[in-house]
Amino acid sequence: MYQDEIIIDGLQYCLWDRAYFESLKQSGVTAVHVTLVYHENARETLTRFAEWNLHFERNSDLIMPVLSMEDVFKAKSEGKVGIFFGAQNCSPIDDEIGLIEVMRKLGLLIMQLTYNNQSLLATGCYEQEDSGVTRFGKQAIAEMNRVGMIVDMSHSSERSTLEAIDLSSRPICISHANPQRAHPALRNKSDEVIRALCERGGLLGFSLYPFHLPGGSDCSLEDFCRMVADAAEMVGVERLAIGSDLCQNQPQSVLEWMRNGRWSKSLDYGEGSASNAGWPAALPWFPETSGLKNIYQGLREIGFSEQETAGILGRNWLTFLEDGLKPE
Amino acid sequence: MYQDEIIIDGLQYCLWDRAYFESLKQSGVTAVHVTLVYHENARETLTRFAEWNLHFERNSDLIMPVLSMEDVFKAKSEGKVGIFFGAQNCSPIDDEIGLIEVMRKLGLLIMQLTYNNQSLLATGCYEQEDSGVTRFGKQAIAEMNRVGMIVDMSHSSERSTLEAIDLSSRPICISHANPQRAHPALRNKSDEVIRALCERGGLLGFSLYPFHLPGGSDCSLEDFCRMVADAAEMVGVERLAIGSDLCQNQPQSVLEWMRNGRWSKSLDYGEGSASNAGWPAALPWFPETSGLKNIYQGLREIGFSEQETAGILGRNWLTFLEDGLKPE
Repeated sequence: MYQDEIIIDGLQYCLWDRAYFESLKQSGVTAVHVTLVYHENARETLTRFAEWNLHFERNSDLIMPVLSMEDVFKAKSEGKVGIFFGAQNCSPIDDEIGLIEVMRKLGLLIMQLTYNNQSLLATGCYEQEDSGVTRFGKQAIAEMNRVGMIVDMSHSSERSTLEAIDLSSRPICISHANPQRAHPALRNKSDEVIRALCERGGLLGFSLYPFHLPGGSDCSLEDFCRMVADAAEMVGVERLAIGSDLCQNQPQSVLEWMRNGRWSKSLDYGEGSASNAGWPAALPWFPETSGLKNIYQGLREIGFSEQETAGILGRNWLTFLEDGLKPE
Repeated sequence: MYQDEIIIDGLQYCLWDRAYFESLKQSGVTAVHVTLVYHENARETLTRFAEWNLHFERNSDLIMPVLSMEDVFKAKSEGKVGIFFGAQNCSPIDDEIGLIEVMRKLGLLIMQLTYNNQSLLATGCYEQEDSGVTRFGKQAIAEMNRVGMIVDMSHSSERSTLEAIDLSSRPICISHANPQRAHPALRNKSDEVIRALCERGGLLGFSLYPFHLPGGSDCSLEDFCRMVADAAEMVGVERLAIGSDLCQNQPQSVLEWMRNGRWSKSLDYGEGSASNAGWPAALPWFPETSGLKNIYQGLREIGFSEQETAGILGRNWLTFLEDGLKPE
């Protein structure tokens, strides 16, 4: 039964306020991977942590911080939503290898090596040339492995992702993206990447962001579940999970911050376009309070067993993170 | 017996390298309050933490981080030296109240509100006008109380210190200073301050920095112990401890950084002078490897009981920190 399971959403970046924390609790999710920063540097990341400390202080009846998977069980038993943090870019470490451990100690459990663009560590999925993992990137992966910070390649390009999978001594994740075979977006992943990721024990979180879905905002729940079933045939159900990429209640300015950071004078439209610059229309079957439950039911209906479905909706993240977060 | 006790030095800022960590271990000290920063801002403080993470990684046979007093017992039982961190100024929080909790989570257990000069929080001991604890200072003290970060007024001026003692809902410390009645330096403390501090459960750590001592570098061990005995008569032995202010092996450039930070174009000489600009001559009875043991013996000889001496050399810090570091 959905309500008895550990449910984990492997990526959200919503407008975090008490009303939304109440929605989260109502949704039955046990823990959420929250994007702490997109382009914030080390100093700015401290302010994001401070803002979250205030959220935890003021909403301690609804949410609690998650630093290890034991905290997820604690959240479940206390009826709270556990929050764990990741960065969508490597900006929190500036140019300093030692900040990986510092940020990990503050509770940054997951970090993408790139966000769409070339970073100091690797190449993003929108660059024309993919030069692979950089010198600093190799050092950073080794250090992330050592301290137990998860490498996430959701917004990285093909070669960089394949290299990161190989370079990392520990399984990595693609927290929120879909197979290109289902929808050929630059942000989605090739069969080669998904196979390599999963052969090494990595995890793929399926995205609910309409630009990543077959048919966009018209993608049906059944289409989505069929995409999951197809991937399960390819790599096995244990390697699959959810990273909804839900950006609930965020204004256009946040979309522009995600897409443009401080790097572009002219507007970059990411997966949109000048004539389609806004947030995509929401999926009717993925409302904030019952979307994950709908997916649970959809996966059951398409033929996944209760255990398989519970794996995709949370247990697979749990197992992956239990291993990945331990220091070497 | 000295070697059976928990020995705590309540302030050092030495040139931290493996050779010095070996000296520390040889000295029999169980734990040391290490000055992490003098004038470093939030971002720079992260680099200091990163440097210490590397010290811990590379010298894990000699030192270990202390985040609570349980770690001090662990250090004792493993024969390692425990290291806990403080800031000599409020620069690590920039102008942001939320950084107090962020820095506390990183392991900053103690913070001075000022270092000699006016800060955003209070007035330093070398200012001509002491305007007391500022608006931000009042908020910061309340927040430090809430998260369990110790207020330290070693380098603060009279009125600010008295106000901080009153404003703080929890006992505070003067980690490294001596009574002005023993030596009338601006950095030393009046009877009124020491009495107010101790009546509220605070702690005074006696400094071994020659500029704070009667007779300077000529101060004898017996002179030092007599100063302690005199203070014990005034406020009771339980409120007394050691904060040696040892700055072993540091070059002149570090002394200038301590005194001038980035605030002065002309050289400020702190407790020295243009004709006496360097480090003061070391006390012959306080060498790095046996100074604390010498004080232990000196205090016993002047008439303190074994229990009282163990209190001054460590147990009083332990009890004070056990209480003070717990979040409210």
